[in-house]
Amino acid sequence: MSGGKHLAKGSAKPEVPDDGKLCLFSMRFCPYAHRVHLVLDAKRIPYHSVFINLNEKPEWLTEYSPLGKVPALQLPKEEGCPPLIESLVIAEYLDEKYPEPKLYPTDPLKKAQDKILIERFNAVIGPMYKIFVNNEVSPGTITDVSNGLDIFEKELRSRGTEFFGGDKPGMLDYMIWPWCERSAMLKYLLSDKYEMDKERFEKLLKWRDLMEKDEAVKCFYLDGETHAKFMKTRRDGEPNYDMLVVNPCKRQRTC
Amino acid sequence: MSGGKHLAKGSAKPEVPDDGKLCLFSMRFCPYAHRVHLVLDAKRIPYHSVFINLNEKPEWLTEYSPLGKVPALQLPKEEGCPPLIESLVIAEYLDEKYPEPKLYPTDPLKKAQDKILIERFNAVIGPMYKIFVNNEVSPGTITDVSNGLDIFEKELRSRGTEFFGGDKPGMLDYMIWPWCERSAMLKYLLSDKYEMDKERFEKLLKWRDLMEKDEAVKCFYLDGETHAKFMKTRRDGEPNYDMLVVNPCKRQRTC
Repeated sequence: MSGGKHLAKGSAKPEVPDDGKLCLFSMRFCPYAHRVHLVLDAKRIPYHSVFINLNEKPEWLTEYSPLGKVPALQLPKEEGCPPLIESLVIAEYLDEKYPEPKLYPTDPLKKAQDKILIERFNAVIGPMYKIFVNNEVSPGTITDVSNGLDIFEKELRSRGTEFFGGDKPGMLDYMIWPWCERSAMLKYLLSDKYEMDKERFEKLLKWRDLMEKDEAVKCFYLDGETHAKFMKTRRDGEPNYDMLVVNPCKRQRTC
Repeated sequence: MSGGKHLAKGSAKPEVPDDGKLCLFSMRFCPYAHRVHLVLDAKRIPYHSVFINLNEKPEWLTEYSPLGKVPALQLPKEEGCPPLIESLVIAEYLDEKYPEPKLYPTDPLKKAQDKILIERFNAVIGPMYKIFVNNEVSPGTITDVSNGLDIFEKELRSRGTEFFGGDKPGMLDYMIWPWCERSAMLKYLLSDKYEMDKERFEKLLKWRDLMEKDEAVKCFYLDGETHAKFMKTRRDGEPNYDMLVVNPCKRQRTC
């Protein structure tokens, strides 16, 4: 759609082909949009991507996303239907509309418990954001991340499965993955090499390795060095949204 | 359970009867807990209520609610199951587990659109909180509330039904109701009598009158004067959680 390039202020409105495919308004490095890419890819739903420059938003963006945020999902088949927003709402819509493979547990209680863990992952996202974006690297923020992750290590041990979803990733796995993928940028951003405690996070580290082999994860995967490179441009106030566009094959695996 | 009294620091752990009923940890004036009372009452699910003093929380609260917040829902039938938290997660769990009457639309797209509106209602909750709790009454906050409500007035007009859920309240109606009920306290909190613009909010005002007649709403209803009285004690730093306990029949209707 936008050829991977992030459309900015002054750009023409994208011409979305009327081919029945969904159209996802995204930003290549946004972890919330990443959630929706993962669900679409896990379900092998064909879709167009329109990437948005969030620093200089196109004038027409609010036509597709009323709050000017990504992700936003346009459903071309539904006449007059406004786009869907909010990553978790979109993810659940896709899971109900395209049930193969089912990502949330079908049991209401198990589903509720996974949703609570997705909510509780916000306690990890908060301090991670401080470290990644604001460069607030203190023992406090590192401790907050680790304490937040303890809950997930404990949960994985208690479930006794490789993934939170069982023998393959489910919605909880995919909803927390974008930040876990980005945790690999820490060793490039911090002056001291950062490693997660191998004993304390034994199951989570094994889970991370397995997740990297998942087909849906591979579709939109970027390595820690690439995430760190983008983050540095963001910290400098000039996010280089299009850093993968010149030679996207170099770093970006495609499905 | 707690006889309407809010259990505080130093209080004994409540003895929840093993009678198969759900047990809701709540606070009588908390709008988020109110959401869950509405869903339970709309579905006529029998439950116990344990009210919590949020200013001086009981030491045992985190056993029932890991983040020490209300609402938290304990399911006694499920052995070893941790309590459910987060009002929207609990509401959806109840809607799936107890489908009569179904509160969310069954169509995934309509359900997603209602969830987006529930999320967008946060744009009303934010400035309302500033007015109610912080007494930040400025043209700016009043305008923010009104602009946020415009979306809901427009939606009700476009749906052409009395309630967002159709001919009776659905999940969207109940999820936004706690703040709409509390808006009646504005005329007691503000020196100038506050009235919503009758033309601008024609449908919403009619909706508010109809909601007040709904059986589930009546179960947990408090009038604007009572909400305002509690809010004044909260603003003074000494929230009078038990103000309805002495003579609860006087102001609190019961199912």
